[in-house]
Amino acid sequence: MPGINDPSVLVDAGTHDDAAVYKLNDERALVATVDFFTPIVDDPYAFGAIAAANALSDVYAMGARPLFALNLVGWPREDEMMALLAETIKGGADKAAEAGAFIVGGHTIDDKEPKYGMVVLGEVHPDKVLTCGNPRPGDALVLTKPLGTGILSTALKREVIAEENMGDAVRSMSTLNAGAAAAMESVRDSISAATDVTGFGLVGHLKNLVGESAGAKISVSRFPTFDGVFDLIERGTVPGGTSKNRQAAADYVRWADDVTEAQQIISCDAQTSGGLLIAVQPEDAQQLVDALKRENTPAAAIIGNIVPGEPVIEVVSG
Amino acid sequence: MPGINDPSVLVDAGTHDDAAVYKLNDERALVATVDFFTPIVDDPYAFGAIAAANALSDVYAMGARPLFALNLVGWPREDEMMALLAETIKGGADKAAEAGAFIVGGHTIDDKEPKYGMVVLGEVHPDKVLTCGNPRPGDALVLTKPLGTGILSTALKREVIAEENMGDAVRSMSTLNAGAAAAMESVRDSISAATDVTGFGLVGHLKNLVGESAGAKISVSRFPTFDGVFDLIERGTVPGGTSKNRQAAADYVRWADDVTEAQQIISCDAQTSGGLLIAVQPEDAQQLVDALKRENTPAAAIIGNIVPGEPVIEVVSG
Repeated sequence: MPGINDPSVLVDAGTHDDAAVYKLNDERALVATVDFFTPIVDDPYAFGAIAAANALSDVYAMGARPLFALNLVGWPREDEMMALLAETIKGGADKAAEAGAFIVGGHTIDDKEPKYGMVVLGEVHPDKVLTCGNPRPGDALVLTKPLGTGILSTALKREVIAEENMGDAVRSMSTLNAGAAAAMESVRDSISAATDVTGFGLVGHLKNLVGESAGAKISVSRFPTFDGVFDLIERGTVPGGTSKNRQAAADYVRWADDVTEAQQIISCDAQTSGGLLIAVQPEDAQQLVDALKRENTPAAAIIGNIVPGEPVIEVVSG
Repeated sequence: MPGINDPSVLVDAGTHDDAAVYKLNDERALVATVDFFTPIVDDPYAFGAIAAANALSDVYAMGARPLFALNLVGWPREDEMMALLAETIKGGADKAAEAGAFIVGGHTIDDKEPKYGMVVLGEVHPDKVLTCGNPRPGDALVLTKPLGTGILSTALKREVIAEENMGDAVRSMSTLNAGAAAAMESVRDSISAATDVTGFGLVGHLKNLVGESAGAKISVSRFPTFDGVFDLIERGTVPGGTSKNRQAAADYVRWADDVTEAQQIISCDAQTSGGLLIAVQPEDAQQLVDALKRENTPAAAIIGNIVPGEPVIEVVSG
């Protein structure tokens, strides 16, 4: 998105951040983000909570705190569907309340296929905005949530697994990145960049994080993943978005020879309400992980580091 | 939407305003609104411009100025559809630029049925927010744009008319309510309430404007309308939303005996990017209309007034 010359616009879509930042004055900037999608689990309350956690995540990824939210709804008008919508909206509202963000309005349209999400407005000090694009070479890379939500929700859609088999993933997707943001605060001056991992998968969002100024090296064996995802991959459960991510990754990822196809797939798996991906000075990385484990993200792990040079993501198995 | 106790939330969905107002401090409040819908004209650029003008309208209706916007897109992924999306987004971006609002991001999902709209953030002084719900009895009611966009766009969809037959309506729907907002500023202290006329039609939004504290009396003969809409109504072109509005109106509208069915229908016609509806002291109403005619809304007219007593909308023909 070229051509935005308004000095108040601190971050726009051109930086690969999913939220925009608008400076109100020297002390305050607004973060605005919007996200919505079709149900990825059958339980409507859980879907609402996940959609809200996912929309709120962009605000946390930028170091901001949520202020308020608007609902976005596309939904079939039939009576039995309206009951599901009420549950979905309740799930979203409860999650937004947990984040301290009131839902103050929204927009609903008739739609054959149900969709739900939120616009979220947040606030941050203009000097404290965390963005993609400029990580410090040598920084450690910390991922706060396990990978595999795309594979699990596709397996559910294809009835390869039942919803009770993905309890861990539902809990993870419903977990606000608020705790991760609080943990980041404890080492805030050591963090050079952050983003959240969603539709483009780990390597896609890592590519956005490094921008044009550096590369990264990550180890598959260190990735937190949900139980059972490698089995599902072996049995052929690969989401369409994940496959597209893997095709795109050919342009910027260097896979080590011993990285298996399944490991490539998990590296590219399109996530919903995924964790934060944080570049932090290596001497503070363990402290950050310890803080994350205390803050509702027990799977947090150091998965690699930023390397100087060309913007290539090197993925190794060991 | 009951139960929002955060004192920073000045306006929420409970007041029937389509935008929420969040107080940042004693000098600044944010206005946030979201709107999106399926194409109502075939020309993608015009659709984008209309969708943007419609989304921006809520900000103007509250006496605020737009700051920035986010695109909302649901669109089929086919190549030929993507070309139409590019034109739609350009129409929206040009209209947002005309309003002084940059588009700083957004969200796009695959969708069988195309949809486009915007999240718009605006700013207003907390003491200068214009809302629904508390108009002054005796105030004149001014409507700034002609009625009939629902009937015309339904006629287009049903191929009763061609798109070149609705040029006036396309121009009107593409016209920002920025001029109307500027005209309001010239008599700002005389205005007790304002809203914009969209999906609930004139009487529906007037019902929201009067709230519980007063009623209104309006004259159909004074309504600005697009050429040809009464012919189309006589030929059976009535949108589903308009019929629903008319059913709902039975609860709060008192139709005079000589108001025809066609006049009832135009009173209830679901509008897209409609005009502002403004309650203004009667002695300043003509000055407001004169200012509106200079500000890009030549059809502006005084259509009735606020009356004391129960919240009933009386519609007369003369």
